[in-house]
Amino acid sequence: MLRPFEWKSDHLLLLDQRHLPGQEVWLQLETVEQVAEAIVDMAVRGAPAIGMAAAYGLVLAAQRGHDRAAADALLRASRPTAVNLFWALDRMARVPWEAPALLQEAIAIEEEDRAMNQAMGRWGLDCLPESANVMTICNTGGIATSGWGTALGVIRTAYENGRIRHVYACETRPRMQGLRLTAWELMQEGIPFQMIVDSAATSILARGEIDAIFVGADRIAGNGDTANKIGTFMLAVAAERFGVPFYVVAPSSTIDPQTLHGRDIPIEERAAEEITEIEGVRIAPEGCPVFNPAFDVTPHEFITGIITERGLHRPPYVFTAADLA
Amino acid sequence: MLRPFEWKSDHLLLLDQRHLPGQEVWLQLETVEQVAEAIVDMAVRGAPAIGMAAAYGLVLAAQRGHDRAAADALLRASRPTAVNLFWALDRMARVPWEAPALLQEAIAIEEEDRAMNQAMGRWGLDCLPESANVMTICNTGGIATSGWGTALGVIRTAYENGRIRHVYACETRPRMQGLRLTAWELMQEGIPFQMIVDSAATSILARGEIDAIFVGADRIAGNGDTANKIGTFMLAVAAERFGVPFYVVAPSSTIDPQTLHGRDIPIEERAAEEITEIEGVRIAPEGCPVFNPAFDVTPHEFITGIITERGLHRPPYVFTAADLA
Repeated sequence: MLRPFEWKSDHLLLLDQRHLPGQEVWLQLETVEQVAEAIVDMAVRGAPAIGMAAAYGLVLAAQRGHDRAAADALLRASRPTAVNLFWALDRMARVPWEAPALLQEAIAIEEEDRAMNQAMGRWGLDCLPESANVMTICNTGGIATSGWGTALGVIRTAYENGRIRHVYACETRPRMQGLRLTAWELMQEGIPFQMIVDSAATSILARGEIDAIFVGADRIAGNGDTANKIGTFMLAVAAERFGVPFYVVAPSSTIDPQTLHGRDIPIEERAAEEITEIEGVRIAPEGCPVFNPAFDVTPHEFITGIITERGLHRPPYVFTAADLA
Repeated sequence: MLRPFEWKSDHLLLLDQRHLPGQEVWLQLETVEQVAEAIVDMAVRGAPAIGMAAAYGLVLAAQRGHDRAAADALLRASRPTAVNLFWALDRMARVPWEAPALLQEAIAIEEEDRAMNQAMGRWGLDCLPESANVMTICNTGGIATSGWGTALGVIRTAYENGRIRHVYACETRPRMQGLRLTAWELMQEGIPFQMIVDSAATSILARGEIDAIFVGADRIAGNGDTANKIGTFMLAVAAERFGVPFYVVAPSSTIDPQTLHGRDIPIEERAAEEITEIEGVRIAPEGCPVFNPAFDVTPHEFITGIITERGLHRPPYVFTAADLA
């Protein structure tokens, strides 16, 4: 199975996703600072993968006798939108500041993620006909998780069960996680697909040939409003207009009952160069002003169902801390 | 005024838009074959500009004593969706096959286009409040026309009249006409704007701050269905959902009353490399399958108004050959 990192007794090997699909570069991370930097710079991305990388980052900090509070704060500041990061750090915070105990917890988080991915894949089968055309955005596959995937994990499980006819994968500007990473994973699995520019999704959805859209999530508010990669809301609006079921797939650790509404989710804005340059080549005129939100929020009324490891949640969505305990 | 070409007694100077905004390269086109190639390869693009380039192409063919039918057929085969190309060639076909007469007609087409751009700009003012936030896609400016623009021409006229607060310009994958060309034109004019990835438009429209969307057109069917750059329909669907007025701006030569419905408009599919490579740099895995339609069709029910040089047309749209005579 495709894994985005591997623990090696005193360091973390991390697959540098910025070089995919061209090169398979593994970073050797020795310190919590290096882990935080890898998250900020998106060498590792995908909400569950970020949480797991941060957990291993704390193991490194403890091994080197670093200050617990400082290590925790550094990782919490790395990316603001995905809640799995905070969830993993909260969970690690309940473990004594000793490397072996922390490592055990990090490994447990990873193993549970794997089991949750498989469970979500099975629940997803209930959302599909015998032979389905589906659509997805961004990368929510093995390298965004512990090796299987959330939304792409559902597609993977469905394909194994002979239920996928065709996948339309959105390229996912500005960072092209679809074009770089999802294409790479789909080709490795031999799943039939076509890549499209994000804006082409609407006319495909209008044709009435798509059975379901599956997307991941970076944070799900208590009322079901969902933050995910920019462009997700575009798909949801077209899906509503043309009657295509729209499913969010994420482990329950992505649900943040403390955040009651989507409008309260902080949306990270990233550098203009993510849009104006590609592979270091300048595309836009110098000085071109840019608005670059990395995520958007899809209001709950656009969401047909939310698939977690616990099952398929249907509206109305009311997630409380007690539900998730 | 910014012009995408300039006639020079025995050749056509053409601004090679593929090198913008980085370099201002002018191609010296000596033959109709070179003009057709420039259209196919998108050195010149924008429906009105394509029509005008083709008209000058016929002048070159006549000057060199080429066969009229062959020259006409070559140009007609260059791009299938935009109807202004066929309109310009039809108009040239009514002129004797003599270079001076053909040149006079080509110049007339260009001068009329300039006047029509100005007229559309004035009609567009009726669609805007005193201080407007607007959105657009692709490039519909000076270099897509005779120097002013259609949708971007409306924005330009509105800005001259103190009516534009802010423009959101969609980058327009795959070929980035927004990021390369519209950004360049807006910066030259000093119009305040921000560039966004196409898929970010939906969440901006949902915020309720946009007063109008202006887009161009490559072909308008008799019932008002409009083919335009891929992504236009995405904007129209979000505009409908969030109550944002959505205007198509194009000269009446873009209306094709012979095509009754949008479903009858041929949609050009272009090479996979437009998506998988950027500036010659490979982004996607080798062999990645792609679906790359260059245009989509926005059904008439999504269109608030169609602005031509004759005025603002409101639904129901019924365009007949007699109307356009």
